[in-house]
Amino acid sequence: MELTKALELFNEKKRISMAYNHAFGVMSYDNETAAPKNSSIGLAKTFEVLSELAYKLTVNEEYFEVIDVLMEHIDELDPITRREAELAEKGLRMMRKIPMEEYTSYQGLLMEAHTAWVDAKLSDDYSLFEPYLKKIIAFHKRVAELCDPSMDPYDFWLNEYEKGLNTEILDKFFGKVREALVPLIKKVVEKGEIFRTDFMNEKCPIELQRQLSDYIMEVMHINREDCSIGETEHPFTTHFNKHDVRITTHYHEDSVVSNMYSVIHEGGHALYELNTGDDLIGTTIAAGTSMSIHESQSRFYENIIGRSEAFCELIFPKIKELFPVQFDGVNAHDFYLAVNKAEPSLIRTEADELTYSLHIMVRYELEKRMMSGELTTEQLPSEWNRLYKEYLGIDVPNNRQGMLQDSHWSGGMIGYFPSYALGSAYGAQIVHSMKKDLDVEKLVRENRIDIITAWLTEKIYKYGMLLRPAEVLKNACGEDFDPDYYINYLTEKMTSIYSL
Amino acid sequence: MELTKALELFNEKKRISMAYNHAFGVMSYDNETAAPKNSSIGLAKTFEVLSELAYKLTVNEEYFEVIDVLMEHIDELDPITRREAELAEKGLRMMRKIPMEEYTSYQGLLMEAHTAWVDAKLSDDYSLFEPYLKKIIAFHKRVAELCDPSMDPYDFWLNEYEKGLNTEILDKFFGKVREALVPLIKKVVEKGEIFRTDFMNEKCPIELQRQLSDYIMEVMHINREDCSIGETEHPFTTHFNKHDVRITTHYHEDSVVSNMYSVIHEGGHALYELNTGDDLIGTTIAAGTSMSIHESQSRFYENIIGRSEAFCELIFPKIKELFPVQFDGVNAHDFYLAVNKAEPSLIRTEADELTYSLHIMVRYELEKRMMSGELTTEQLPSEWNRLYKEYLGIDVPNNRQGMLQDSHWSGGMIGYFPSYALGSAYGAQIVHSMKKDLDVEKLVRENRIDIITAWLTEKIYKYGMLLRPAEVLKNACGEDFDPDYYINYLTEKMTSIYSL
Repeated sequence: MELTKALELFNEKKRISMAYNHAFGVMSYDNETAAPKNSSIGLAKTFEVLSELAYKLTVNEEYFEVIDVLMEHIDELDPITRREAELAEKGLRMMRKIPMEEYTSYQGLLMEAHTAWVDAKLSDDYSLFEPYLKKIIAFHKRVAELCDPSMDPYDFWLNEYEKGLNTEILDKFFGKVREALVPLIKKVVEKGEIFRTDFMNEKCPIELQRQLSDYIMEVMHINREDCSIGETEHPFTTHFNKHDVRITTHYHEDSVVSNMYSVIHEGGHALYELNTGDDLIGTTIAAGTSMSIHESQSRFYENIIGRSEAFCELIFPKIKELFPVQFDGVNAHDFYLAVNKAEPSLIRTEADELTYSLHIMVRYELEKRMMSGELTTEQLPSEWNRLYKEYLGIDVPNNRQGMLQDSHWSGGMIGYFPSYALGSAYGAQIVHSMKKDLDVEKLVRENRIDIITAWLTEKIYKYGMLLRPAEVLKNACGEDFDPDYYINYLTEKMTSIYSL
Repeated sequence: MELTKALELFNEKKRISMAYNHAFGVMSYDNETAAPKNSSIGLAKTFEVLSELAYKLTVNEEYFEVIDVLMEHIDELDPITRREAELAEKGLRMMRKIPMEEYTSYQGLLMEAHTAWVDAKLSDDYSLFEPYLKKIIAFHKRVAELCDPSMDPYDFWLNEYEKGLNTEILDKFFGKVREALVPLIKKVVEKGEIFRTDFMNEKCPIELQRQLSDYIMEVMHINREDCSIGETEHPFTTHFNKHDVRITTHYHEDSVVSNMYSVIHEGGHALYELNTGDDLIGTTIAAGTSMSIHESQSRFYENIIGRSEAFCELIFPKIKELFPVQFDGVNAHDFYLAVNKAEPSLIRTEADELTYSLHIMVRYELEKRMMSGELTTEQLPSEWNRLYKEYLGIDVPNNRQGMLQDSHWSGGMIGYFPSYALGSAYGAQIVHSMKKDLDVEKLVRENRIDIITAWLTEKIYKYGMLLRPAEVLKNACGEDFDPDYYINYLTEKMTSIYSL
């Protein structure tokens, strides 16, 4: 096949598969936001039909040839098409290696595993989920073996989520973080309650919390004509193109802060997607480059900006205006201290900045050992509980609040968790670099987060997936990843807040 | 081609095209409800791609042969497949005549037209929408000409929405209605203000109005797991299957009645879709059979039920509970009279039962003349205003409250409006027949609207599109359409309310 012909077919398939993805995306979003409960019956049927069409579109000999031709001529392609082709090849590589029946039966397994996990969590009965987890782990080992027998299976999956990532890097990273944070947490715990947090669970009407969300979006300079806020059980961000980004939040009447930081976190994800380059519009690479770079942005806005004293001072007048009774006698500094309270806890998604990475480390250790065969799925609960005691110093009362809390494993996401911790660490390194160019604190105080976003756009966002994660980091920071920035950031912040 | 082969291909194509329609439906619904404004840019692109795929799926020689074979063997098919095949043939008849680029670019045009209409309405600037309307009218003429050059283009579209309908029938129907209603309206206007309506525009918080919507859905016995309420500029109902129906409403703080009757009206549409037969699930005929039969149901629930004294008595305690200050000193009878106030007004969707059909007649006249070329889109606003003066005796102050008020034209619905007036007339004939079997008033008072719905399900809903509009009416009433029931119903009701 000629290169011209291959490119033509590639573009045609791309156009169609992007349309399918758009449809899948909107239908999934609708299902989680607006749809009545029984919508899912018809949706499953439609997804089956559309997935089959999408599968047939690229998993066929003609398209394999298209990809082979593009790979042969990879250096002749323009940078955008080159990345699109590389990513298409990567996506297809796995599909070409896995026998069709194994692939489809795994898809079926995941559906059942999700239901089993929900049941197991609700009834606090891990035995309902354990057989599925065993099969999911086995499938991950098998795929790694089929795709690249030379690689360690867990490294294979880490590398899938974050190009270049492996256990060697992570062991070093987590080792260093643990060494620094465990004693810091110990000191914080010993300090006890040194500031007020009593106002944190006052009842705040949801209608007014919605107004706060709108205000937060304004402060983040997010154009609402390109980005909506929906309401779901678990907040998330999804996007269909740079002019159509959706964040969601969840309102708790007795925790105004929960929604507020959900909006800031998801707003961070949104800003990344809203600011990919115009030159990438209509391509498959107009999106964040990896989950950890994405999390670095959401957690940057949520924690480094959103939990800074400058930000608390900026927004506190609005909080007082909306909730004068609830925050009576509270000032911005009280609020700043309260939103930074550090305390070992059971649930990852509710963990504070300081202890968050330890939750990730537990999951990383367990995944690594399950993938190496050192740990069986039967042994998982007791190991989970042992590590929570060791790392966080707390006792896990049941599996529901323990190893059944997250949906990731039931969804077949093995090797994904480290992204969250890496993201936090990247964020600290990025802001260190940013501070060479910008007076970040002053900008926040002056309600100019748009200038911060403009810096990030120039260094990170505009590239979309054109740069790989490590390249993005180097481009933003001028150096390779260094976890010391993260450790220093947390140490300084906690030392100040807790007067250590 | 063998019949067996034709049926196999027919079912396969049907499966795929229903999946596309589901995707189109959800994406359109999302676009009107949750999506940020600029979503439509990317959506237009995706719709273009998917419409092209949907088009290619059925507009090809192989499928033409499938349809031809099914038509040859039409009497051998089971009743459901027969109707599916007949409707597929009808749908294809048009597609076989329209060139593909024209079809897909029209789909894109509609997306843009919707946004332009919203902008035009919000800014009261018809010039933003006029160029799109011009193209929409041109497309309708073109399609009519391509499909059946022997037919008058407007008749062609009337017949599309309601089998057998044409301007001759409508001129006669509207003539008769106008002849009876205009003097009746005159008498009512001369009577002046004979009952209180001062409480109708009290401010009612939207959060509480949402609770009223939930209550109305309960009273209508609509299962919320199958039917959601969204919020849009213009209320509508859409459905993807009988377990996934969406109604929308619009809240006005100073008109609790506006939302209330929107919910009842759309709830009526919803009940039709929610009660199509289980034997039709997964077929292309699990839907209301025509727009006017659909409107007969929505307007039956809205007016004949919703504006009856029995219904007002049933729900008024809830209104008092939610809005005690706003309805202080008002009783159910006051409320009943107020919601039946007849008065020539500007907005169709807020018009009373008596004057409603005159709003439709204005639109009918204008569509007819635009389609004949007698009226240009530029002349539309002044003609609209002239007819409102002539038929309803009122001055239209701006286009926002004038010819920009409805979304139909921006959605490419030319020939649709008459359905509303026909629907109202059908409804009066249907309830006349229903009363032979049921004590309708008593059932409403006893909160048993479900029994009324069960009667309608048995006579109308369960058939979906299996019966044609005229057959449905005959099945429900035992006779052909007769507008006298409508004229009598309105005359009696208004005579009683206004003591004429």
